Amino acid sequence: MGAKGHRIYPFHLGDIDLPTPRVVTEAMNTAIADGKTGYCPGAGIPALREALADDVNMRRGTSYTPENVVVQPGGKPVITKFLQAVMNEGEEVLYPNPGFPIYESQIEYLGGIAKAYRYVPTERGFAIDLDQVESLITPKTRAIIYNDLQNPISAESTDAEREAVAQLAIEHDLWVLSDEAYFEMRYSGESKSIASLPGMAERTVILYTFSKKFAMTGWRLGAAIAPPEIAGVISTMNTNNESCTTHFIQYAGAEALRGDQTEVKAILDTLRGRRDAAFDVLSTIKGVTIAKPESTFYLFPDVTEAMAAKGIEEVNAFSTEALHATGVSFCTRKHFGRPQPGEDRDYVRFAYSGLPEEHIRGGLGLLKSWIES
Amino acid sequence: MGAKGHRIYPFHLGDIDLPTPRVVTEAMNTAIADGKTGYCPGAGIPALREALADDVNMRRGTSYTPENVVVQPGGKPVITKFLQAVMNEGEEVLYPNPGFPIYESQIEYLGGIAKAYRYVPTERGFAIDLDQVESLITPKTRAIIYNDLQNPISAESTDAEREAVAQLAIEHDLWVLSDEAYFEMRYSGESKSIASLPGMAERTVILYTFSKKFAMTGWRLGAAIAPPEIAGVISTMNTNNESCTTHFIQYAGAEALRGDQTEVKAILDTLRGRRDAAFDVLSTIKGVTIAKPESTFYLFPDVTEAMAAKGIEEVNAFSTEALHATGVSFCTRKHFGRPQPGEDRDYVRFAYSGLPEEHIRGGLGLLKSWIES
Ligand SMILES: Cc1ncc(COP(=O)(O)O)c(C=O)c1O
Ligand SMILES: Cc1ncc(COP(=O)(O)O)c(C=O)c1O
Repeated sequence: MGAKGHRIYPFHLGDIDLPTPRVVTEAMNTAIADGKTGYCPGAGIPALREALADDVNMRRGTSYTPENVVVQPGGKPVITKFLQAVMNEGEEVLYPNPGFPIYESQIEYLGGIAKAYRYVPTERGFAIDLDQVESLITPKTRAIIYNDLQNPISAESTDAEREAVAQLAIEHDLWVLSDEAYFEMRYSGESKSIASLPGMAERTVILYTFSKKFAMTGWRLGAAIAPPEIAGVISTMNTNNESCTTHFIQYAGAEALRGDQTEVKAILDTLRGRRDAAFDVLSTIKGVTIAKPESTFYLFPDVTEAMAAKGIEEVNAFSTEALHATGVSFCTRKHFGRPQPGEDRDYVRFAYSGLPEEHIRGGLGLLKSWIES
Repeated sequence: MGAKGHRIYPFHLGDIDLPTPRVVTEAMNTAIADGKTGYCPGAGIPALREALADDVNMRRGTSYTPENVVVQPGGKPVITKFLQAVMNEGEEVLYPNPGFPIYESQIEYLGGIAKAYRYVPTERGFAIDLDQVESLITPKTRAIIYNDLQNPISAESTDAEREAVAQLAIEHDLWVLSDEAYFEMRYSGESKSIASLPGMAERTVILYTFSKKFAMTGWRLGAAIAPPEIAGVISTMNTNNESCTTHFIQYAGAEALRGDQTEVKAILDTLRGRRDAAFDVLSTIKGVTIAKPESTFYLFPDVTEAMAAKGIEEVNAFSTEALHATGVSFCTRKHFGRPQPGEDRDYVRFAYSGLPEEHIRGGLGLLKSWIES
């Protein structure tokens, strides 16, 4: 359709169309000029491991050292390496569903058994079904993946929920992957990490990424923040798999953390504006039920009634028809893990990080007209 | 020792201390200015896949299309992904030993059985022990790793040897990983790829890397060149593991291939000078037997007699004593896979890519004095 000259409104991509702050690119070029173009240690350069340990501790109240930090080419590789480090074949791992689809695919690719846990709508937004989580734990359960500030739901744990997950992990001796990709993508309030709760740092691996906060998705820079024994295993995997993460990009990452934050803050302000614009329109569409999340850059409305009004039964068909009629492209719940038994509502996901406010309003306006017509 | 103020001569690192050609860095910055900082396709950007297919075809006489090319963060990841794509647990893979140590470690890490094949000294340098290769093949053998222009030996196949390896692969229906990291690191003659032999492209995965030719080791850019079904599997692994290789670095890679080659050629000339300098000194050391390879940037002398003259029995002890006495640091045969039964000569490896001619002559001069004293 894009090729045919119609405008496409790309709400399906979890990518950011904003430039990376200049301090980051400049630090990269300085590093290249300084000759940082050769191999570097598999676990990352000391300057970045230190900067990350400091930054993570400052924001989370943890007490990591650089030895806990293993640099990665993005946040995503932490998922695979966490599973390779803690899970044996045939063991079970609990994961959020709907959730980032890589959890399910990598647990299964690596020979584990992926056990989905669900979220339930409450007055204050979506909450983890803790009773279900507990009921899923068996002697073969090795780990739980926990994504506070959730993709695609934008769910956020209360303190009580986070503590309950920690409690279950401790009681049943589970490893925890805490996917903190959106830890700093929040418009009000303060993020907390499950790793900061008592007894948790020693069983938690944090997925850290530069992708979102610094508009660096295509740079591929992230880290696993892990207890020493897991950090050591992951560091060996780095050496054997990819050798190291791009050397000079690590200097850019250290500067992203320690350097001037003006442009970094501007990214969040822009995204806040986009969230407001997207929410403004979506919340007025008849048959669309939506919460206003304070974090991530996703909206996850319930479109069950809108679909009924259009006479469309299947959510992917709804998405395809909307795209054809309006140019608005979005994901559905089915992109985020295998749907589970008992789901009776239909959801779709809008990412507002990849297009300017004007197109957000324009595209969603067309969608509103189409749904309500 | 370096910290104590003694000079260290780092012949142990297979890294390059030369700057990356400016055309490459400039293309990268242009791509960043063009906004190529977001995610890109897991298999790589079309411009780079095309440039690589063209370049590989031109130099190897193959007929790959961009669909055969899957971009990677370096050449090394191709080893893991090849094994994940073709090998099941409990299956056997033949690999060169001494050889790049990652072959052995990753076959075993992924649950395969690593079966070492050896090289034998001949008048024209080292040759693969083809009889041994044949004798190692069983119904459980799934693949053979072949590294023409070899690290650490610098062995080079004759046409007959390459054809014999291909013949065995075809007869026994084996996948081939052709590690071509040093394909263009040669000072005379012309490289040939086993993938260009009849019946081989469909069973061969080429490990391609930008690391050596373009002095880009720390950039992490390479590719798997593979038959379509394997390319598809590896591309899915990319999406699930690291998402993609750094976006703007892929534009830099395309320019490295298609842009001005003046600085690229200068890298090879510098390395030729270093090879000559290193060979000049090493070949005059009493008790050191050495060939003059026309490719790679390694020298792999037999030091059996030199060790005997110094009264040292074990090759790692020889390396440690040499380092303490002279500051010259080098690897031994033991760094390149588990030593095999029947080995009765001792070898060490000098990489001359990481230090200037002056220090090559200086360091190896000290080594000569120490060995001969
Ligand atoms: C929940 C979640 N985790 C991890 C990632 C990984 O991102 P990256 O690999 O770019 O760091 C993403 C990206 O969309 C995400 O949404
Ligand atoms: C034989 C061989 N293969 C592959 C590689 C991988 O290099 P890279 O991952 O930098 O492309 C090397 C690097 O030293 C090598 O010597």
